[in-house]
Amino acid sequence: MQIALLGGTGDIGQGLALRWARDTNHDIIIGSREAEKAETKADEYETELASRDEDVDIAGLANPEAAAEADVIVLSVPAYYLSDTIDDVADEIGDAVLVSPAVGMQRDESGVHYNPPGVGSVTALAAKAAPDEVPIVGAFHNLAAGKLANLDADLDWDVPIVSDDADAKDTVTALAEGIDGIRALDAGDLANASEVESMTPLLINLAANNEGMHDLGVKFH
Amino acid sequence: MQIALLGGTGDIGQGLALRWARDTNHDIIIGSREAEKAETKADEYETELASRDEDVDIAGLANPEAAAEADVIVLSVPAYYLSDTIDDVADEIGDAVLVSPAVGMQRDESGVHYNPPGVGSVTALAAKAAPDEVPIVGAFHNLAAGKLANLDADLDWDVPIVSDDADAKDTVTALAEGIDGIRALDAGDLANASEVESMTPLLINLAANNEGMHDLGVKFH
Repeated sequence: MQIALLGGTGDIGQGLALRWARDTNHDIIIGSREAEKAETKADEYETELASRDEDVDIAGLANPEAAAEADVIVLSVPAYYLSDTIDDVADEIGDAVLVSPAVGMQRDESGVHYNPPGVGSVTALAAKAAPDEVPIVGAFHNLAAGKLANLDADLDWDVPIVSDDADAKDTVTALAEGIDGIRALDAGDLANASEVESMTPLLINLAANNEGMHDLGVKFH
Repeated sequence: MQIALLGGTGDIGQGLALRWARDTNHDIIIGSREAEKAETKADEYETELASRDEDVDIAGLANPEAAAEADVIVLSVPAYYLSDTIDDVADEIGDAVLVSPAVGMQRDESGVHYNPPGVGSVTALAAKAAPDEVPIVGAFHNLAAGKLANLDADLDWDVPIVSDDADAKDTVTALAEGIDGIRALDAGDLANASEVESMTPLLINLAANNEGMHDLGVKFH
């Protein structure tokens, strides 16, 4: 499967790219607003993986070209770039599944707070910005980017997944579970995205307030 | 320490009462709007514990009398009774710490959704309803009542705790960790309560959508 990580040059996109490249046989395409930046990062990821005896090719393309190649497009961009990023690639999405991992947050003196857009969640915003026929899946909201990108770190995290499209949910569930140490869980419809997204500021607040805790994820049982 | 569980006749109050009675030396007082109902439930809990060779006395009193005795008062009532319950006991709180575990939720065809009151969280509503000088702690929002009340079930759950009062937070942290299998975590100020509360509908949605999962709690790492 071809996975395009738009905004895959940093944050959660980097970790997903490295882990999918290492743990699965999917083809990884890094997307960025600038093709050159995408290529540079793709090379860096290849070098990082080669240093671990993982010989993989990772492509680097401008976002629209990356989207055009992909079966699954992960919008690994900050929430405030989400609509613009979707607009930039809308004509290239085709039959691909669109995955939204972004969370809207706001910081004050107490900590970090969930700050959803008016439509209720960032995942819902992605659905609103995308062409009507594109299946939207909310996933990977609660992964700590630093630990995810550190291939020395073993994961043991759950990934709640929301979507109104059962096939797309299955596709992303399989993708998520392709990463070692990730268990995907069905959190229901897209309307349930806000409860998933709002766990991210909680994870950040817990890491900030408890000694020895950082890069937190979650496990449900 | 004297712990009063207002609304301790059902749901999460039952589980906290049984586990504190079994796992700690604290004195447990069940509060209810009707003293007789509180007494009946207290007797039931004693019988349940006696069947496990735990010989403890549990008191049952009307809410105001229960509150008057207590060092810590747990408002284990539904969110929509919270303000009324606090009003009923306001004159009896004295130096006690008030603990709010309730979560406002609403169900639709997709699942259960977080539905906070206008002040931002149920914990903040407790702070608003209580006399100014009373320390408020948000805790125990994310515990599955059924499993908590089943003393055959071993727990392995985290309890995020929020408060603006450091001493009260320490008191409730120690209380929480007195229960076998519970780890208390500092989630920061009371302003961070909504992110803690909104995890409860997520737990319910995950249990509803994943086969073999029920009575879910959470562990952060």
